[in-house]
Amino acid sequence: MKQNKKIVVIGGGTGTYSILSGLKNYPADITAVVSMADSGGSAKKERDAWGLLPSSDIRKSLLALADVSTSDSLLLRKLFQYRFSEGEGFVGMTFGNLFLVTLTKIMNSQSKAIEKASEFLRIRGKVLPVTMDKIDLVASYADGTKVVGEHFIDQPAHNGKIAITRLYTNPKALLNPEVGKAISESDLIIIGPGGFYTTIIANLVINGMGEALSKSQAKIIYIQNLMTEIGQTYKFTASKFINILNQYLPSKNLDYVFINNAPIPPNILKRYQKVDAEPIMNDFAKTTSFKVIAADLLSPKLVKKETGDLLNRSLIRHDSSKIAKLCMKIIDLV
Amino acid sequence: MKQNKKIVVIGGGTGTYSILSGLKNYPADITAVVSMADSGGSAKKERDAWGLLPSSDIRKSLLALADVSTSDSLLLRKLFQYRFSEGEGFVGMTFGNLFLVTLTKIMNSQSKAIEKASEFLRIRGKVLPVTMDKIDLVASYADGTKVVGEHFIDQPAHNGKIAITRLYTNPKALLNPEVGKAISESDLIIIGPGGFYTTIIANLVINGMGEALSKSQAKIIYIQNLMTEIGQTYKFTASKFINILNQYLPSKNLDYVFINNAPIPPNILKRYQKVDAEPIMNDFAKTTSFKVIAADLLSPKLVKKETGDLLNRSLIRHDSSKIAKLCMKIIDLV
Repeated sequence: MKQNKKIVVIGGGTGTYSILSGLKNYPADITAVVSMADSGGSAKKERDAWGLLPSSDIRKSLLALADVSTSDSLLLRKLFQYRFSEGEGFVGMTFGNLFLVTLTKIMNSQSKAIEKASEFLRIRGKVLPVTMDKIDLVASYADGTKVVGEHFIDQPAHNGKIAITRLYTNPKALLNPEVGKAISESDLIIIGPGGFYTTIIANLVINGMGEALSKSQAKIIYIQNLMTEIGQTYKFTASKFINILNQYLPSKNLDYVFINNAPIPPNILKRYQKVDAEPIMNDFAKTTSFKVIAADLLSPKLVKKETGDLLNRSLIRHDSSKIAKLCMKIIDLV
Repeated sequence: MKQNKKIVVIGGGTGTYSILSGLKNYPADITAVVSMADSGGSAKKERDAWGLLPSSDIRKSLLALADVSTSDSLLLRKLFQYRFSEGEGFVGMTFGNLFLVTLTKIMNSQSKAIEKASEFLRIRGKVLPVTMDKIDLVASYADGTKVVGEHFIDQPAHNGKIAITRLYTNPKALLNPEVGKAISESDLIIIGPGGFYTTIIANLVINGMGEALSKSQAKIIYIQNLMTEIGQTYKFTASKFINILNQYLPSKNLDYVFINNAPIPPNILKRYQKVDAEPIMNDFAKTTSFKVIAADLLSPKLVKKETGDLLNRSLIRHDSSKIAKLCMKIIDLV
């Protein structure tokens, strides 16, 4: 029997959720590698009050891969997604995070807790924290300032138009050995989409990640975000993303870059303009060291804000099935 | 095949937990009927912030009846029991309550949520709220004062030595029809042990409970508490408990009263003395309308305080298996 292809998806947020949701419908072995730098919302409580690693990105990837074939599975999914909109200390927290927090406290291990939650949710694949170390993201800016904490990089006190010149973690963090193993055995690695520094590069700056990626025989796809983002990628063009990405991946070339070419509806564009965000301009040269796949990657569904959600979410998302289909085409070639 | 005997246990707190834990080892159909007047601790948040009925007593009875035969069952039990000791808004809350709260929000029905949680925990038997109405307990005292709220009756602002002259609910509450059905079909009804007014009589004052009990053909056992309690039963003797109980059960006679006759260790007695609590004196007349069973009902285990628990718990408990054995002897006679 032919072995399933092995796919590693690196990211953590709602972008990764979209990618995983599409991939799980194909016969592939999926591993989601999730950034552990989250410091806002629930993560603040998880870190400060409970001394744990943040679990929102873990929760999202678990949900993306969760079984949906029985009414009990669907109910468990709903439980995990439930977000409290009332109650002192609870507003904005999800039940899924509390489930992971409690399991971690009981089992005295976040890895075991994630495994157990994976069993309960009957997920297809595996979800791995990129590191088991407690870290803060640190960003240095072009004006010489420095910001500590993912949440404050995502929503900076300054105008958000000053470029980040360097991202690193404090303290230095070691790659989760299981992630190294998954990367070394993989046929395909998908990086992104997601917060460029706060989610994507936050994974790449983990000690050992660069080495693992450069040793791997896998093809690498980078999936461009749909829009630029104030605070992280203000006025970035497509090639600028790749130039910076290459700084953090010195000895590994990307094989494919996916970029959306479907027009964003004007009413949505207007709402993004208010926060200085615009579609990422495809300024790639005619010949690049990677293959550019420009296609309609846009989900036709608009994202609604959940009750109780304290964070800003994007209005548009990548289309899970369109992207999964493109990835599968590539994997057949691997 | 002989049908299982049907037992209804009326109460709600840790006393009921002890009784259920013992009964579940016998081939009987068990229904726990649980007081819904709880207003302290988690209940305050459940009622005020989430607009729900309190769930701590539900949780305890579910746990008492939960499966313990697999490692997954044991883990789920531990999850339900986990009590947060840190985190603003979380201290003292249990994960089990949060599970029930979230299920109720998702399923839009506390009854369905309890049923679903019962499935997850693979419980033996059934747990029913005595009423689905949102109520407050009201106590009138011998000095003419009135206190509203279970929590404030349990821990009164006055010295706790003034007798309660009347307990009722505001608004009037209707018996959960499923409770009525369970009582009418039962072979044995066990009332107590537990907070005399705040748990036991809190069940009896629900509209329809008196009628259901008097129509039932079941034998009724009342299990005396181990100790008197300031605020509720200060200086009560055994017969005083029964006299008051009879006021709330005007047309139904008790068949059996269990009372502990094992001595309480002197060091424990000393600790109880500090809160004006003493063993309940057996002052029953030689002939009573019910059978008095005075026996060693004391658990050899001392109760430890959980981390994060904000409430005062008793130091000693009833012995689950001793009481279950006595009940089973009676049920064979029914």
